[in-house]
Amino acid sequence: MADLKLLIDTVRDELQSMQHQGKVADYIPELAKIDPRKFAISITNMKGETISTGDDNERFSIQSISKVFSLALALGKVGDGLWRRVGREPSGSAFNSIVQLEHERGIPRNPFINAGAIVVADVLLAGHQPREAIAEILRFVRIAANDDTIMIDPAVARSEQATGFRNFALANYMRAFGNLHHPIELTLGVYFHQCAIEMTARQLSEAGVFLANGGRDPRSGLTIVSKERARRINAVMLTCGHYDGSGDFAYRVGLPGKSGVGGGILAIVPGEASIAVWSPALNARGNSLLGTRALELIVRETGWSAF
Amino acid sequence: MADLKLLIDTVRDELQSMQHQGKVADYIPELAKIDPRKFAISITNMKGETISTGDDNERFSIQSISKVFSLALALGKVGDGLWRRVGREPSGSAFNSIVQLEHERGIPRNPFINAGAIVVADVLLAGHQPREAIAEILRFVRIAANDDTIMIDPAVARSEQATGFRNFALANYMRAFGNLHHPIELTLGVYFHQCAIEMTARQLSEAGVFLANGGRDPRSGLTIVSKERARRINAVMLTCGHYDGSGDFAYRVGLPGKSGVGGGILAIVPGEASIAVWSPALNARGNSLLGTRALELIVRETGWSAF
Amino acid sequence: MADLKLLIDTVRDELQSMQHQGKVADYIPELAKIDPRKFAISITNMKGETISTGDDNERFSIQSISKVFSLALALGKVGDGLWRRVGREPSGSAFNSIVQLEHERGIPRNPFINAGAIVVADVLLAGHQPREAIAEILRFVRIAANDDTIMIDPAVARSEQATGFRNFALANYMRAFGNLHHPIELTLGVYFHQCAIEMTARQLSEAGVFLANGGRDPRSGLTIVSKERARRINAVMLTCGHYDGSGDFAYRVGLPGKSGVGGGILAIVPGEASIAVWSPALNARGNSLLGTRALELIVRETGWSAF
Amino acid sequence: MADLKLLIDTVRDELQSMQHQGKVADYIPELAKIDPRKFAISITNMKGETISTGDDNERFSIQSISKVFSLALALGKVGDGLWRRVGREPSGSAFNSIVQLEHERGIPRNPFINAGAIVVADVLLAGHQPREAIAEILRFVRIAANDDTIMIDPAVARSEQATGFRNFALANYMRAFGNLHHPIELTLGVYFHQCAIEMTARQLSEAGVFLANGGRDPRSGLTIVSKERARRINAVMLTCGHYDGSGDFAYRVGLPGKSGVGGGILAIVPGEASIAVWSPALNARGNSLLGTRALELIVRETGWSAF
Repeated sequence: MADLKLLIDTVRDELQSMQHQGKVADYIPELAKIDPRKFAISITNMKGETISTGDDNERFSIQSISKVFSLALALGKVGDGLWRRVGREPSGSAFNSIVQLEHERGIPRNPFINAGAIVVADVLLAGHQPREAIAEILRFVRIAANDDTIMIDPAVARSEQATGFRNFALANYMRAFGNLHHPIELTLGVYFHQCAIEMTARQLSEAGVFLANGGRDPRSGLTIVSKERARRINAVMLTCGHYDGSGDFAYRVGLPGKSGVGGGILAIVPGEASIAVWSPALNARGNSLLGTRALELIVRETGWSAF
Repeated sequence: MADLKLLIDTVRDELQSMQHQGKVADYIPELAKIDPRKFAISITNMKGETISTGDDNERFSIQSISKVFSLALALGKVGDGLWRRVGREPSGSAFNSIVQLEHERGIPRNPFINAGAIVVADVLLAGHQPREAIAEILRFVRIAANDDTIMIDPAVARSEQATGFRNFALANYMRAFGNLHHPIELTLGVYFHQCAIEMTARQLSEAGVFLANGGRDPRSGLTIVSKERARRINAVMLTCGHYDGSGDFAYRVGLPGKSGVGGGILAIVPGEASIAVWSPALNARGNSLLGTRALELIVRETGWSAF
Repeated sequence: MADLKLLIDTVRDELQSMQHQGKVADYIPELAKIDPRKFAISITNMKGETISTGDDNERFSIQSISKVFSLALALGKVGDGLWRRVGREPSGSAFNSIVQLEHERGIPRNPFINAGAIVVADVLLAGHQPREAIAEILRFVRIAANDDTIMIDPAVARSEQATGFRNFALANYMRAFGNLHHPIELTLGVYFHQCAIEMTARQLSEAGVFLANGGRDPRSGLTIVSKERARRINAVMLTCGHYDGSGDFAYRVGLPGKSGVGGGILAIVPGEASIAVWSPALNARGNSLLGTRALELIVRETGWSAF
Repeated sequence: MADLKLLIDTVRDELQSMQHQGKVADYIPELAKIDPRKFAISITNMKGETISTGDDNERFSIQSISKVFSLALALGKVGDGLWRRVGREPSGSAFNSIVQLEHERGIPRNPFINAGAIVVADVLLAGHQPREAIAEILRFVRIAANDDTIMIDPAVARSEQATGFRNFALANYMRAFGNLHHPIELTLGVYFHQCAIEMTARQLSEAGVFLANGGRDPRSGLTIVSKERARRINAVMLTCGHYDGSGDFAYRVGLPGKSGVGGGILAIVPGEASIAVWSPALNARGNSLLGTRALELIVRETGWSAF
């Protein structure tokens, strides 16, 4: 881990000169306030040890990275029946596209585009009040991270609620096809709160390490999901985790990963480690620009790859 | 390898009861003649040893699996400049869709859909006569397979030439955008002949093993491509290798793979083995139905996975 | 007019045998209750005289036919500036398609598809409370029809409000692009009430006759719109009045027309007459099946045509 | 007619200041050579009298305007059966779009987009050698125009043949769906020659006047098509005659019209006159910019309108 620590410090230094590139997400007002110079890397290995660098103890909004945890939770609740309501194919479209929904009659292409994650939230809402469903997602993340201090930022949730017209469009559209089972406001309430979970880079690599470790948290020893399920979630992350930039991420980084518009990325090195990076400025496809670059440098030096 | 041999024999027996399912490709008349009950599995490990079962010494048309070899060859010739003329994102569309080409001005989404592979053939044609380009592809496959007996079936090439109206449409369309540089007949001549390469399952797993072995052929010791390039080709296979069924294949099998409408699939287990399966009947997305099922059973028993 | 009366009586008789065809709109529960055997024709000539047949004094929900009146009203308020927010091209898509909106960044293709009419409602809402805007539309229709008894059916408005998920999707989607200026609930409130205007066939042909008469109501003598504007509204009706069946209607009937899912059609014979038909069962594109057929028979006998 | 002559002279003068606008079609090399300052108007009335102005005796390539004549001819040969192979709905897309063909399985949206006109050419080729089919189209135009001097420019036909990759793509694509019945080279040969018909503005307004006159040529007295068919062709011209600018042309000009990339437009004033205009520079949708403007000025002064 000492070598790794040196590596990520070097990567951080190397990328400082590129900090003017990319653009912080501005469509959620609360996120637009973030300092684009924030930067963190954290790596958790199979023993549960974590090294980190930069603003590694600063919380950021994990946004769409939460879709990994809600997917894991929903598969635990309804199993492969989930795939009747959402596909698992790359979309070839932007994260908030509605075109595919019309052609495919309200079934989102995969659980990592917004429409798909809204369906997953609707699944988690079954038999619950929204606040119970939100609490369940948060509890799952806390267990995975072994950390009860992880919280939701209500200002971010409200901010997205007030401006999320596209998400309301997607939800209404799927409701028209009968693929949402609850009132739209409730389902989106769950979705917006899940996206507003805040974590530090350290907490995020720790929360994701079970996916690298066959479904088991190396620290608590708890089985979070089965080995086969962990692999399958990784597969969906690799093919769909970066919207219409998924193929590029797979080519350049070669690891399952999930990005969020808050600038975070969670990447999984099966059998080796989980990596969390955070840099708020995004590339044209809405994925962290320097975060992706950092992962490229790390895999080049470590030789880590799914392939 | 003894255990593996037992496993693939068992898989072959187990799948015999499903041989009425799926449908042999009928749009290329020469392929429509194949007996749907043909079945073979072959596995080559990191020592270059191969085990196989079923019709493992019978040649079949590798069709789109050839796109893996032509991609490797083209990257060797022009490097990452290739990506200016073809993308590397999953398409979310059928193998012969033309819609995406209009929206993206003649740049195919990836090198494994027909349009993309036609661009790769056009790249390989630069500075050559068509027969030289075809010979170069064939030579590459023979070197990879360590086998000079691998041939092209001219009847299949002619059959596709005579009926490939969609491919002519795709080629003309890309030519209109300036993304083909040679006369369409010549570029498609290369493409149709490349698709008509015939191999046995044994030859195919042997030809593909360099991708599992960091780019090196374990028998000849030759470096076919660099380690990094092997990984990247695997990444493209995983995200794009099964057309609009790529996500499903990644979820169920969890390995880089490339299918052909002749019923073959080449799958790569990085660091472990290459697997060739052959069963001519296809599922709705044009991928071998029993071939996919066989791979599922093999990874379930071996635990092989990219994830 | 006596000959015309005989003609429409004959048309009514002739079509009775076809009354089992088509399908009453069922997605708005209040409309699904309508007796599919209802049938009416009404013709108003340039002197303001009206003849009619069938259920000609029974009110029906004019639904999308209201879009003709709201367009006329909006053009009166903001003139050609309206076309910055909505196009005037045929859409080639279903009445409730959202695909085009994504490609054209929230600008609906024309004012007669749902998305376009919602924009027009939003224009009419400027500076008003929703009930004022609704009242203004109703007043416009009453003046055009010379009839103060025309009303809105609040049950229909509520019914659509409760089930109009696609319209909520369209509205949210346009709001995301900044092409709605008011809260979605308010704009859609106006839209749903406008669609719930009830008229008899007689009232409808009388309300529409100004479009045949160069913009002037032949009875009251009032100029409702300018001559040029009347012609232009007719042009939009001809190219866009029947969704993705507009070309077929133009070919078979040859008159500007606007249909509604309540089964009504308003057709304009420039310089001659306005025609209202009502038959609730719809064809596959959501236009009155027998209503269209009735218009075909009428133009065949009268020789009426825009061409 | 004296007043009209004065009017069109005035229009010509008025538009001279705008002659720097628009852009001559450059994708057919032979057309790119045309002097953009060329300008002509010709009007033929119901007595068969013609007035004209500008370069009214200079031949230009009528290009897509020929689709009106080939449609009339094909309807005469196969009647409404034509509509099984081509639709009659506006396309909402550019003249050479291929997207719609994929979604609608090789059936072009209407006979005035390229794909549709290629199908019409294929219909006219039935039972003929290409040169016979070409001769038949030319004969039809000559009869309509009462003028045996009308010719095809073979250099233009060759020029399009050599560069028409998109048209080859469209044809191959429709062939893949079985909607072309002859070898593509032959069908496109007919199509390219038909587009290369050359006429003066005078010849063009004379050739089109039968559509304004209920199908009958006022000079020869010949019935070219039935009255009903003339109306229906006018209807298709109005809804589909200007590609994805058809709605705009209907709104601004209000007449059935068909444009060609050579800069010509044929407009029909039912019961009054036919109008030919020619000005080579095109607007963004491929329709003559000043030609459209000229028609706007003419209808404003004359009050001519279909509506």
